[in-house]
Amino acid sequence: MKMLCQSSEELNELVMEAKACTKHGKVADYIPALAKSNQHDLSVAIHYPDGRCVSAGNVGKKFTLQSVSKVISLALVLMDWGPEYVFEHVGMEPTGDPFNSIIKLETIAPSKPLNPMINAGALVVTHMIKGKTIEERFQRLLAFVRELANENTIHYCEDVASSEFETAYLNRSLCYFLKQHNAINEDIEQLMDLYTKQCAIEMNCLDLARIGVVFAMDGVDLFTGKQVIPVDIARICKTFMVTCGMYNASGEFAIKIGIPAKSGVSGGIMGAVPGRYGIGIFGPALDEKGNSIAGIKLLELLSKNYKLSMF
Amino acid sequence: MKMLCQSSEELNELVMEAKACTKHGKVADYIPALAKSNQHDLSVAIHYPDGRCVSAGNVGKKFTLQSVSKVISLALVLMDWGPEYVFEHVGMEPTGDPFNSIIKLETIAPSKPLNPMINAGALVVTHMIKGKTIEERFQRLLAFVRELANENTIHYCEDVASSEFETAYLNRSLCYFLKQHNAINEDIEQLMDLYTKQCAIEMNCLDLARIGVVFAMDGVDLFTGKQVIPVDIARICKTFMVTCGMYNASGEFAIKIGIPAKSGVSGGIMGAVPGRYGIGIFGPALDEKGNSIAGIKLLELLSKNYKLSMF
Amino acid sequence: MKMLCQSSEELNELVMEAKACTKHGKVADYIPALAKSNQHDLSVAIHYPDGRCVSAGNVGKKFTLQSVSKVISLALVLMDWGPEYVFEHVGMEPTGDPFNSIIKLETIAPSKPLNPMINAGALVVTHMIKGKTIEERFQRLLAFVRELANENTIHYCEDVASSEFETAYLNRSLCYFLKQHNAINEDIEQLMDLYTKQCAIEMNCLDLARIGVVFAMDGVDLFTGKQVIPVDIARICKTFMVTCGMYNASGEFAIKIGIPAKSGVSGGIMGAVPGRYGIGIFGPALDEKGNSIAGIKLLELLSKNYKLSMF
Amino acid sequence: MKMLCQSSEELNELVMEAKACTKHGKVADYIPALAKSNQHDLSVAIHYPDGRCVSAGNVGKKFTLQSVSKVISLALVLMDWGPEYVFEHVGMEPTGDPFNSIIKLETIAPSKPLNPMINAGALVVTHMIKGKTIEERFQRLLAFVRELANENTIHYCEDVASSEFETAYLNRSLCYFLKQHNAINEDIEQLMDLYTKQCAIEMNCLDLARIGVVFAMDGVDLFTGKQVIPVDIARICKTFMVTCGMYNASGEFAIKIGIPAKSGVSGGIMGAVPGRYGIGIFGPALDEKGNSIAGIKLLELLSKNYKLSMF
Repeated sequence: MKMLCQSSEELNELVMEAKACTKHGKVADYIPALAKSNQHDLSVAIHYPDGRCVSAGNVGKKFTLQSVSKVISLALVLMDWGPEYVFEHVGMEPTGDPFNSIIKLETIAPSKPLNPMINAGALVVTHMIKGKTIEERFQRLLAFVRELANENTIHYCEDVASSEFETAYLNRSLCYFLKQHNAINEDIEQLMDLYTKQCAIEMNCLDLARIGVVFAMDGVDLFTGKQVIPVDIARICKTFMVTCGMYNASGEFAIKIGIPAKSGVSGGIMGAVPGRYGIGIFGPALDEKGNSIAGIKLLELLSKNYKLSMF
Repeated sequence: MKMLCQSSEELNELVMEAKACTKHGKVADYIPALAKSNQHDLSVAIHYPDGRCVSAGNVGKKFTLQSVSKVISLALVLMDWGPEYVFEHVGMEPTGDPFNSIIKLETIAPSKPLNPMINAGALVVTHMIKGKTIEERFQRLLAFVRELANENTIHYCEDVASSEFETAYLNRSLCYFLKQHNAINEDIEQLMDLYTKQCAIEMNCLDLARIGVVFAMDGVDLFTGKQVIPVDIARICKTFMVTCGMYNASGEFAIKIGIPAKSGVSGGIMGAVPGRYGIGIFGPALDEKGNSIAGIKLLELLSKNYKLSMF
Repeated sequence: MKMLCQSSEELNELVMEAKACTKHGKVADYIPALAKSNQHDLSVAIHYPDGRCVSAGNVGKKFTLQSVSKVISLALVLMDWGPEYVFEHVGMEPTGDPFNSIIKLETIAPSKPLNPMINAGALVVTHMIKGKTIEERFQRLLAFVRELANENTIHYCEDVASSEFETAYLNRSLCYFLKQHNAINEDIEQLMDLYTKQCAIEMNCLDLARIGVVFAMDGVDLFTGKQVIPVDIARICKTFMVTCGMYNASGEFAIKIGIPAKSGVSGGIMGAVPGRYGIGIFGPALDEKGNSIAGIKLLELLSKNYKLSMF
Repeated sequence: MKMLCQSSEELNELVMEAKACTKHGKVADYIPALAKSNQHDLSVAIHYPDGRCVSAGNVGKKFTLQSVSKVISLALVLMDWGPEYVFEHVGMEPTGDPFNSIIKLETIAPSKPLNPMINAGALVVTHMIKGKTIEERFQRLLAFVRELANENTIHYCEDVASSEFETAYLNRSLCYFLKQHNAINEDIEQLMDLYTKQCAIEMNCLDLARIGVVFAMDGVDLFTGKQVIPVDIARICKTFMVTCGMYNASGEFAIKIGIPAKSGVSGGIMGAVPGRYGIGIFGPALDEKGNSIAGIKLLELLSKNYKLSMF
């Protein structure tokens, strides 16, 4: 097996090649904060299990996690409650419907989101984060993110959180539908507050690669040797990243690239190559499925060049 | 054509016959106020164009309009805005989906409720009631109801309104979905306040028959000779009562009974036999489609005995 | 009430006005025989209960019934089996789905077409036409059509029938789905043979108006005084024409025009104004819902001018 | 890593444990040939890359491949046409709908099956098998199966094939729907002949394990060293086995067991642990999702005991 990029130069070449396709993508424009992103940005970091990290692009650029956060909240909730309880409330099956679809909540009885990577499922997951108050629950999640990234300055972007809070009508619709069916039983405005803060947690691609490598290495923190996430839970999260991490392009991504990965509408992608590396990417120009267009291209180049597919 | 019941005795016999089936129905139990209804109640009033009224059963018993109110708010909004504007925002087509279904809002683009008798459509209609404040809008609707019924003491039931306001998660889900698609653009809690008050407007079957006869007589108030509702709008309302007035049993009702009618979950039914009579019924035991089980039976007897079908 | 057109001149003027919109329509092009129609054709006949008939346009032009035949086969099958049996196999409810949709057959259990005017329902109806062989069943239907139209030369167009037989993949798909669920249990190719012949029955607008007036007059043949269709069955058919006769524009048609009517993809429309007239129209240019664009316009003019709405 | 079962004794113990749950399952009963299976059967073979094979249970018992054949026909078609062409005609995405659902064919435009593991997709795949006649196409597929299993006596079961041919109404419905949308353009009865023969290909668990190890070892035949399936195509097949190989339990299977696997309604399961082993299982008692209930249990025991999950 050819070793993965040994140098930033090598990685930089791939970034240059992938960057060519940013012009075919579009930044998310549903909130001003995201619309201001530079369409041509592309940064990447690859974190090795031995602590080394190779990166390219403007790696200091911060972005909000958005849907990437769904994997992290899932890990926390699985640690809070255990898989049995959690999967009574959210399913394990991929879906052919869009990530924000409400249809299956009506057609499947009892009403239960198909998986934790679609919005309905992620909202049920966030609903399960333990804590007495919204503030306490968010601080627990944030502390977990900081621990995973080994970076105590990580915070959330208030502008993005409040913009999304103002306009999250579809998520409120999903929440109330779930509340009608007793799948959520807290105040929806409070839950939206927590959920939009979760989505607005902000970091750069170095931090994200660092989190990715924890998932890749079965939940172990490389520096401390501490098991930050139990093995089984890290494995469950990687499985969801494969079966439903890349919206409605998850199947194609698994076939063409074969890396457990989760993307967000801000243009972030977290990859976790089992037993090998963590990858953090930021490229805000999205393809029509909502995934970073240059990020996907870059992962395809990496997977082909270094044989990263699990399959 | 055999004349309709000339006496309360004749009508009373039919009521007795219809009452036998209340034991096969069930009162709505989703809010305590409705669950307290007496399952065996059945009252009816038939209002003639000449002002006479024949009635039977405990006609003084009050009930909330619930979905029956959808016809009245539709008439008001059509008067406020005209059909062209209104039907840009809500469709004219019957649906095979349940009255509270959200699926078509996702599958049809642009997102527009199929008709004003399903919840999604009724919410868009209520959203269009003109007025500067919720209070003003509700008072306009209430004044319209009082004018139609020629009864100034009509009010809404605060208990029912507040119970429904507390638990209307599904309606909130529909509202937020519609807000996401710009089909509603006001504060949802305010709209729910207005909508639940509308549904909680309370009257007895005499009042409801009186409103029915206004629709039956093309919008004319019999006593004053005043055109309370323009002819065209009264006609539109009656058409919706035929194509989608009785939930998912509208087609069967049209075939078996053939009277424009609108039912509500409280057990009320308003009928409007074109050019002939208004009918008000209250029978809280519901069949599995959500219509008053004895009310439907009574209308079937009336339709068969006096040849009331339009078809 | 203003009397309906007394003269062909009066009717001709309305035809001229309606004809203006043929340019916005499109003839059906899925089989060559239909595609050859002249987009600008528009002919109409109005049949009075006293035997008089006013007509305009090229009234001798023949066309195939297509979906208009669904009303006639329904009447025959209701006469063959009675409503109770028939409605165990096909529903009475309108649908918001397209006429050729298969979705509800999968989502509703047990699988039963919502009504006899959508393709799935019409196929189940044709399946119920009594007779030992396809030929006998078709001859029974044809004899019934001839009796209704009082015209013994009516036949079916072999070209259209065989073209449609060759290409009716979607109808076969519906049939096999229904066969899977035991809603159809005959050989599908045989049923398709019968169904495509039924759809290919050919006549002109005079014949169609003559059939319409039988439905309008509660099933009575004006000349012989014979009850060709039982009253109840004629009523049931007119009800379906109102609730689901004009594809996905049935609700709008009921509101704007208010005449029981059934259209077909060849551009035919049969109208039956209860107790008053039968109407036959042929205008092959279709609107986007599949209804004759000029035919609808003409019916709108007739309904407005002569107050034909039932509502 | 603990070595996988070294002896039949060790494997036999796991089989005994798994067998306990056959009583909670049910054999498929839609055709007599399958209904005759012994509910309590459970046999398994594990094929190692070095040619060794460990097995337990009545390993000589034959069963038909049913849906397991979908992976093999996919491999053949990918070899016939290349991935680009194939994926123009069938998608790569998992679905939350049942394997025999027709809904998405109507709701997604253009009509294209979501993936090759659901029936609609498998039918499109079989449609693409090259050859001048049905016989030639089937013989090519059979030859490929024999090559993969290194067993020239493999044939298909005529009884099962003809039973399924007679009753495959739902598959015909899918086919005609696809033909309507030009996704299939051959004679449907011919295609059904080919497809039902494909599903009726018969072997024992030793043969199936032998095929599994070819997929596991990236398409290489261990004995000859020949690349029977190109690496990329073997990888694609394994990916589909993970994302949609186990019907609507694929997600749960990936999480709990994590082995690329494909099941069939006869009770067969083929597993392919990447780079390690092939697994063949036969256990005809099915769970409510349609997977071998004891087969799943056995794979769960194997995965837990020997750490076989890919994730």
